[in-house]
Amino acid sequence: MNYSVVKGTRDFLPNQMIKRNYIFNSIKSIFELHGFCPIETPSIENLSTLMGKYGEEGDRLIYKILNSGDFLKGVDLSNPSDINYKSIANKIAEKGLRYDLTVPFARFVVNNRNELNFPFKRYQIQPVWRADRPQKGRYREFYQCDVDIIGSNSLLNEIELCEIIDEVFAKLNLNITIKLNNRKILSSISEIIGKPEMLTDITVAIDKIEKIGYEKVICELLERGLDQEDINKIDPILKLSGNNKDKISQLKTILSENETGLKGIEELETVFNSIDKLNLSSNIEFDITLARGLNYYTGCIFEVKANDFSIGSITGGGRYDNLTGVFGLDNMSGVGISFGADRIYDCLEALDLFPKEINNTTKLLFINFGERESQKCIEYARILRKNNISSETYPDKAKLQKQMKYANDKNIPFVALIGEREIEENKIMVKNMISGEQTLMDINQLIEIFNL
Amino acid sequence: MNYSVVKGTRDFLPNQMIKRNYIFNSIKSIFELHGFCPIETPSIENLSTLMGKYGEEGDRLIYKILNSGDFLKGVDLSNPSDINYKSIANKIAEKGLRYDLTVPFARFVVNNRNELNFPFKRYQIQPVWRADRPQKGRYREFYQCDVDIIGSNSLLNEIELCEIIDEVFAKLNLNITIKLNNRKILSSISEIIGKPEMLTDITVAIDKIEKIGYEKVICELLERGLDQEDINKIDPILKLSGNNKDKISQLKTILSENETGLKGIEELETVFNSIDKLNLSSNIEFDITLARGLNYYTGCIFEVKANDFSIGSITGGGRYDNLTGVFGLDNMSGVGISFGADRIYDCLEALDLFPKEINNTTKLLFINFGERESQKCIEYARILRKNNISSETYPDKAKLQKQMKYANDKNIPFVALIGEREIEENKIMVKNMISGEQTLMDINQLIEIFNL
Repeated sequence: MNYSVVKGTRDFLPNQMIKRNYIFNSIKSIFELHGFCPIETPSIENLSTLMGKYGEEGDRLIYKILNSGDFLKGVDLSNPSDINYKSIANKIAEKGLRYDLTVPFARFVVNNRNELNFPFKRYQIQPVWRADRPQKGRYREFYQCDVDIIGSNSLLNEIELCEIIDEVFAKLNLNITIKLNNRKILSSISEIIGKPEMLTDITVAIDKIEKIGYEKVICELLERGLDQEDINKIDPILKLSGNNKDKISQLKTILSENETGLKGIEELETVFNSIDKLNLSSNIEFDITLARGLNYYTGCIFEVKANDFSIGSITGGGRYDNLTGVFGLDNMSGVGISFGADRIYDCLEALDLFPKEINNTTKLLFINFGERESQKCIEYARILRKNNISSETYPDKAKLQKQMKYANDKNIPFVALIGEREIEENKIMVKNMISGEQTLMDINQLIEIFNL
Repeated sequence: MNYSVVKGTRDFLPNQMIKRNYIFNSIKSIFELHGFCPIETPSIENLSTLMGKYGEEGDRLIYKILNSGDFLKGVDLSNPSDINYKSIANKIAEKGLRYDLTVPFARFVVNNRNELNFPFKRYQIQPVWRADRPQKGRYREFYQCDVDIIGSNSLLNEIELCEIIDEVFAKLNLNITIKLNNRKILSSISEIIGKPEMLTDITVAIDKIEKIGYEKVICELLERGLDQEDINKIDPILKLSGNNKDKISQLKTILSENETGLKGIEELETVFNSIDKLNLSSNIEFDITLARGLNYYTGCIFEVKANDFSIGSITGGGRYDNLTGVFGLDNMSGVGISFGADRIYDCLEALDLFPKEINNTTKLLFINFGERESQKCIEYARILRKNNISSETYPDKAKLQKQMKYANDKNIPFVALIGEREIEENKIMVKNMISGEQTLMDINQLIEIFNL
């Protein structure tokens, strides 16, 4: 029998949980400082809500849940040759697992619109599931930490998201670069060569420039159906150089005839100008090759990379003008980003950036010398806890060595030994596990140690 | 198209999340004060891990996940009349959703035993899923908050769990009664009538005594196959009276010949005697009719009821001597309880016990009067956040009334108005939203308001 975890999923041990919670709590605290409110949506959604929102590949990767009871009821099996898994999947499975937090959020906004305060600022930290092939750094169950503002077109929201990114990673001590682009500019590239239908092909190709280089991107563009004349027009865009201001000014000339492109540039410029005055600690970079996969983005798009560790994007997002439209609510523009907790974890681990003091373990262990002594211990432990000092009594009368090893393995800084003499004298023998020093004291003196 | 949530699942709005987090954080803080460490297990497990652990009913209620890709590969469809949903279910679905936290925890302990520090004290707060018929107070997705000690036989663990129950509900200000029983005593009842195989029938019947009354329980016992002689033997057990000590003493006489029963009584007595000295604030009651459904319990069993609100059990658990055995690890006794966050929520809501101060919303909203003013606002907001004061700038230049309504609806206590004059003078007009008072001040004075 196979009793291991499902491939691509993970057990989290206490020391991993403590580090993960450090990341979640850091992110959450910044979200709340900016006035974002928590929400949660169900893990299980109707497939009608999920399907068709993530492209064909996404549909395939959604985990589908078998209907309860006789799921074959109503399925015609009389002609076996007519049956294939694609044709019966949507009959035997009508529910699926959440694939991301953005689409359920759009559904949430539509369903609860009468109870929400717009512009609605929400954050959501929950797992998502993808029936993907597991590989290093890619899991079938992983957490997303999303923050979105919906119901406002203002670019102040884009600016606030940059501030949030900056503050989160400053708090985590991770040096990062925020990459910005704008979907309108990408659209304009396909427009100026007169091939708007090629937008996706073009963005998919130029997105790879960092990985495969300029020459290969040009080859791919030609393969995908662009001609040499198109390449000549796109070439200067791929060769933008200098700082953000330089790049924007070069692009303004190149796209001077294209309204969509100029609108995109104007949006980016507003964001850059405002952020310049805020003295963020992160680099912010205009990157024309940044595309972001999902089709629902319509304005600014964001991506974050760690400067000192190579792991791909650790945060990403963008502006979507009509995500709630598919659920029947138009004119509800939103913008949001998603922090990838697992990759951030890997960065912090690799760069040794987890603070030592987050291991908030038991402060004191009472050694168990037998029934009478341990009764005294649990009474003392109760007093310590009332003073907010975490403490436990070893449950068994085991060998002292075994109990001390338990304290050591759990990094417990103090151990209390209570024998007959201590009971009689109302004292506690306290051992500092780092210095090895032993001191006899009463319970009030013990409490004081922790209040220093 | 159906875009509502799946029946039996729920969206959680910010004001609900804040209350839920208050419950989770309260429970978590008590767990940590007792030295329990957090773990998490995957939502998705192999069905081989889950099936057969929860009885037939449980197996039916486990959500099964359709295999990825061509799930019909290897399924013989040539003889349609041979096919039924039961026979193909385990071929097309090999994974399922977590049904509770205890069985995955047992699997976790077995798989990770070399990295754990025994006796291992863990807590786990995660959702579970059951394909149940939704009804009031019963959901298809709900959170469990579990705390277990595994790898120790000591009754100090049972005592600690009673303390945890007491401290959690004291923190939540909810008056409760802890009901205790012992599976060994229940076993002995079936033994003294010479029908050990009837243990489940007997416990299922007497568990209903509070709901349906003594007479009907007797009828049910007779229907289930007991005879009048058996009833005569069981009758005094069902009629135990007085306080815990009285009941135990009566039971000692009744079960004087039965070793299992006496062992169970001894265990209960030890727990009661120790707890008597701890001055808990909760009632603790020996309840011989308490059975707990799951078959894996072998010693003490616990259940908690709210004194002032009728909603069934809000916490429950017990001792299991061999839960890890099915996963290949014997001699690993454990004991644990599970807090039902949803029912606790309903209790606190019904009794109006949620503290008012948990709504930790934005402290100050900057009103947006236009581009130049809002740039100043976001610079100020940044300073406030650096001083740990949550603040936001209304993203759009909307009508003042609309912006004030936003602040009101979000319960934001202060609003800042910055017009041209304020910019020139480096001042901020701060309005107290409760008193209505307006005061002109500089940023340092504003920070001081919140530090008072």
